[in-house]
Amino acid sequence: MKIYELGPAPSARRVSIFLAEIGIDVERQQVDIRGGENLSETFRAISLNGQIPVLELDDGTTICESVAICRYFDEAFPTEQSLFGNSALEKAQIEMWQRLVELRGLLVAMQAFRNISGIYQDRENCITAWGEESRQRLVDFLPTLEKQLSKTTYVAGDSFSIADITAVILCDFMKNLEIHIDENLPNLQRWYQLVSARPSVKS
Amino acid sequence: MKIYELGPAPSARRVSIFLAEIGIDVERQQVDIRGGENLSETFRAISLNGQIPVLELDDGTTICESVAICRYFDEAFPTEQSLFGNSALEKAQIEMWQRLVELRGLLVAMQAFRNISGIYQDRENCITAWGEESRQRLVDFLPTLEKQLSKTTYVAGDSFSIADITAVILCDFMKNLEIHIDENLPNLQRWYQLVSARPSVKS
Repeated sequence: MKIYELGPAPSARRVSIFLAEIGIDVERQQVDIRGGENLSETFRAISLNGQIPVLELDDGTTICESVAICRYFDEAFPTEQSLFGNSALEKAQIEMWQRLVELRGLLVAMQAFRNISGIYQDRENCITAWGEESRQRLVDFLPTLEKQLSKTTYVAGDSFSIADITAVILCDFMKNLEIHIDENLPNLQRWYQLVSARPSVKS
Repeated sequence: MKIYELGPAPSARRVSIFLAEIGIDVERQQVDIRGGENLSETFRAISLNGQIPVLELDDGTTICESVAICRYFDEAFPTEQSLFGNSALEKAQIEMWQRLVELRGLLVAMQAFRNISGIYQDRENCITAWGEESRQRLVDFLPTLEKQLSKTTYVAGDSFSIADITAVILCDFMKNLEIHIDENLPNLQRWYQLVSARPSVKS
């Protein structure tokens, strides 16, 4: 197996943290995204969405989309407490929070950053006004996380899950938008310190 | 159990088609989204994201996010061929396509529609230029689906899955953006006819 990635990119970090949590080590190959290596014919042949990360299995089958890669490892190498949940209700609640944090948080943060900074304006149209609107929507979402974390230890309940992985990547990435977790969000602060201290997140 | 929904809304249809496929009937209560009923304190108390659909279990536990609701039923009422896949590889491939169709298709279509039409301008800022950009990105995504469907019967392989449900909802919704599946996309046309004829989709 091999993973094509760009180490510091949010979606690559999602897979790296997941693998570190379940104790699996996979060969990595770095892809030069800024240089446009992911736009090449060679890379498009292995990555359907032209993005990293991509998992290549030993028979040549490739899987893109970071959550799908995590799902593969979760199913192929089961752990006692799955990061996707064990019971039907736990799985549904983790999926709910994973989606809320991704759709209202991480994706919004990415749209804010790409449209405001124009980092990929060589390959996409940037709409600054949408970037600013997205940044505000992200700020408006944080109290939802704060409220949840006033009731639970982790994002989706009492156990660390993939929803926490998505959330910690979001909180790290928000710094690029000069959004910081201040004292108005004390439970989010408490949680952020807790998960940032995990070896999987620190590495 | 009860589901709060607005029948014709794409995310409510996702759950309805899923339930019809696995043969489960659940009580429904309609929510007046256009009238803003989902913005009320009462509704926010049961729906974390203030959106439909929401599943309320008999003990009062609520789950929002349509895919999380489908996941709950998939786990609590297992079928021989899960719409999320059976083997690790199948689950990963279905998750990959489900995400590709959602993140590059359905969500982009929703952003296009909301920002161009201004349907919810009483409650959100609309950026027309982002709507137009989103519409173009959606058009640019369709050849990815066409290419896949030139190789497989259904979106994620040989079996009907939740990725097909997301894709058929997308194709129906695209009509609001005056995007139609024309003869340049013959395999997408073939697939669209095939899935549109399913009783779960027709109803």
